[in-house]
Amino acid sequence: MKTTAVIMAGGRGERFWPKSRNSRPKQFLSLTSDGETMIQKTVKRLIPLVDISDIYIVTNSAYKTLVKEQLPDIPEENILAEPAARNTAPCIAFAAAVINQKYNDAVMIVLPSDHLISNEKLYTDTLRKAVYTAEQEENLVTIGITPTYPETGYGYINFSEEYNGAYTVEKFVEKPDLQTAEKYLDSGKYLWNSGMFIWKISSIFTNIKKFMPDIYEGALKIGKAFNTPDFNDVLIREFTAFRSESIDFGIMEKAKNIYTIPGSFGWDDVGSWLAVERINETDENNNYIDGNIISEDTHHATICGGKRLIAAVGIKDTIIVDTDDALLVCSKNNTQDVKKIIALLKNQGREDLI
Amino acid sequence: MKTTAVIMAGGRGERFWPKSRNSRPKQFLSLTSDGETMIQKTVKRLIPLVDISDIYIVTNSAYKTLVKEQLPDIPEENILAEPAARNTAPCIAFAAAVINQKYNDAVMIVLPSDHLISNEKLYTDTLRKAVYTAEQEENLVTIGITPTYPETGYGYINFSEEYNGAYTVEKFVEKPDLQTAEKYLDSGKYLWNSGMFIWKISSIFTNIKKFMPDIYEGALKIGKAFNTPDFNDVLIREFTAFRSESIDFGIMEKAKNIYTIPGSFGWDDVGSWLAVERINETDENNNYIDGNIISEDTHHATICGGKRLIAAVGIKDTIIVDTDDALLVCSKNNTQDVKKIIALLKNQGREDLI
Repeated sequence: MKTTAVIMAGGRGERFWPKSRNSRPKQFLSLTSDGETMIQKTVKRLIPLVDISDIYIVTNSAYKTLVKEQLPDIPEENILAEPAARNTAPCIAFAAAVINQKYNDAVMIVLPSDHLISNEKLYTDTLRKAVYTAEQEENLVTIGITPTYPETGYGYINFSEEYNGAYTVEKFVEKPDLQTAEKYLDSGKYLWNSGMFIWKISSIFTNIKKFMPDIYEGALKIGKAFNTPDFNDVLIREFTAFRSESIDFGIMEKAKNIYTIPGSFGWDDVGSWLAVERINETDENNNYIDGNIISEDTHHATICGGKRLIAAVGIKDTIIVDTDDALLVCSKNNTQDVKKIIALLKNQGREDLI
Repeated sequence: MKTTAVIMAGGRGERFWPKSRNSRPKQFLSLTSDGETMIQKTVKRLIPLVDISDIYIVTNSAYKTLVKEQLPDIPEENILAEPAARNTAPCIAFAAAVINQKYNDAVMIVLPSDHLISNEKLYTDTLRKAVYTAEQEENLVTIGITPTYPETGYGYINFSEEYNGAYTVEKFVEKPDLQTAEKYLDSGKYLWNSGMFIWKISSIFTNIKKFMPDIYEGALKIGKAFNTPDFNDVLIREFTAFRSESIDFGIMEKAKNIYTIPGSFGWDDVGSWLAVERINETDENNNYIDGNIISEDTHHATICGGKRLIAAVGIKDTIIVDTDDALLVCSKNNTQDVKKIIALLKNQGREDLI
C-alpha cells in the first residue's frame, strides 16, 4: 500500500514574535543555525520514507506562496490551501479525501510542520514501525514521547499492552494540571501526545464517518471536486461550513483500535523562545547568540540579532530578539506572556506589527 | 565687577552609549522628557545671574557646530573651541585669558555642562553667595554637595570654619575607596566636589601663574591674540603644547584661600544610565519608559525607545536603549561596563558605532 504524508502547516504560532508574524509563522522560520526552516526540515526528514510526490502540505491559503517558495519540489497540487482555519480534524479530513481520490486508500502519516527531531534515523525507523501497525486491521497509530518532566502544556496518552512494538492506547487525555502531570510521569503509563498520527485513509474515514458525519460528507464532496473546475467553489462552501474541531477531541478520545509507538528519536515541539537554546549550540557562558552581538558578563541569554549591533551587558536568563520594526526583551520566566504582547498590539490596532 | 560664566563642554562622555556618541556626547543630549539638552539647561539656569553675552562655552572644535545649533543666543565669539583635549586646567586658563581681554578682570563662574539641578532658585542663590565670596580678597570658591551616601566616584572637599556662609576648605581629596568614603560621610566635614568654581580672573591667574607657569604664559598669548587674524595659529600652537591637567590637581589641591559653599539645590551629575530614572518621573511599576514601548510584568526598568516598538516582558532592573544602529540591554548592576563595550567596539574597528 502507498505511504503518503500530510504536513499540517496552517498554524499562526504567536510565540515566536517578533520573528514570527501572521504573515510568516514559525513553520516558515529558521530557528537553527543551518538556515533551514521548520517545514523544510519536516519534509526533508520524510524523504527516506515517502516519495516527494506523495507529501501533501495543508496550509492556510495565505501561506500557499510561502510553501511554494520554501518547498519548490512539492507538486503544486499537493499544496492544499484551507480557505479558513478549522483546527486539525477538518484539515485531516480534507487531505484524506484528496489523497483518496488519487490512490483509493493509502497509508497517511500526519505530522505537524514545526517540530524538531534530533535523530532522523530513529525517527524514520519509528515511523516505519507505525506504518506497519497502521496497515493492520483499522488501527489508528500515534507516536508518543516518553515524558521527562511533568509538562502541563501537552496532552498525554495512557498506554497498556504491547503487540509487536506498538502499545494499546487506553485513552487520550487533555493537558493536565501539575499534580496530575506528576502522577502521569510517576506511573510510567503515559506518553506525551506529539500530534503525529499514522493510519490508512480507510481507517480514519471509518472513524470520521462515525464521530463527525457532517465533516465526512463535506470532505467527500471536496475530494470528488479535486482537479475539477468546481474545486475552489466546493472547497470554500464545504470547508468554511465545518466546525472547528481537533482530531484529538473529535476522534482519538473516542475511537477504538488506537496504538502508540514510543518515539525515542529526540523530539522538541519548539514551543517558545526557550527552545532556541535547547535546539542550538550555546557558548561557554551558556548563551545562544546569533547576529551582530557584543556581550559582557552575560549568561544563559538567547540573543537573535537583526540588522543592528546589540550590546548585552550583565544580562542573565533573558531573551532578546531584534527585527526591523520590533524588539523583544523577555525574561525566560515569561516566554508564555509574549502572547499578551500580541493581544495588546491587537487592541492598539497595530496589526502591522503582529 | 562683571559676572561671567564659563561652561566646560568638551567631554566625550561614553557612559550614555548608544545614545551618546563621539559625535554627540552627553552634554548635547536630552535625558529628560522636556526635550532640553543638558547644555541648554545649564545655560538657561544661569540667565538670572549672567548676561547671555557673558556666557562662554569651551568645547572641542568638533562640537562647535552643535553648540551653535543648540545655543543660538550665545555670541559666536563666546564659543571657545579647543584644538585638543587637555582636561580642565588649560580649558579654564584659555577662557580666563579670553574674558580678561574683554573685561580686564571679572568674576568667572566655571561650570560643567552636563549636570542637573533640581531647584534653580536655590541654585542661583548659592551662586550669588559664591560670587560675593569670590569678590573678596583672592578667594577661590567651590560649590560642595552634601554627600548622602559614600560615593567612591567623586572627589571630596574637607571644610572647616564658616565665614559669612562660606566654609574654609582644608583640602581637596581625590576619589576615595569605600572605607574612606564612609569615614568622610560620618565625619560631617566633607562635601562632594561638584566641579563648579567661582573666582575672579585675577585670583585664578595668580594661582595659575604660581602652580602652572607654563600654562599661564601660553594662556596670556592666546588671550592677546583673541580677535586678531593670528588667533587660530596661536591657539593651536599654544594650546596643543599644554600638558593635560585637571584644575583640581593643578590648583585646588595646592592653593590657599579656598572656600566652599554647600549647595542644597538638588544636584545630579547624571553619571550613568542609572541617573535617568532618578531625574525623570517613573510609572506605577517604577519604570522610566520613553518611546514606543509595550511592557508586561516589567519593573524598575529604564527603556529609551528608538524608531521601533520595544516589547519588554518580565524585565527587572534593566536598562534598554534603542538607536538606529545599536541597541543596549544592560543590567542596572553593570552600567559602568558600558565603557567596556566601547573599548570592544574600538578593538573591532567599529568607530562608526562609537
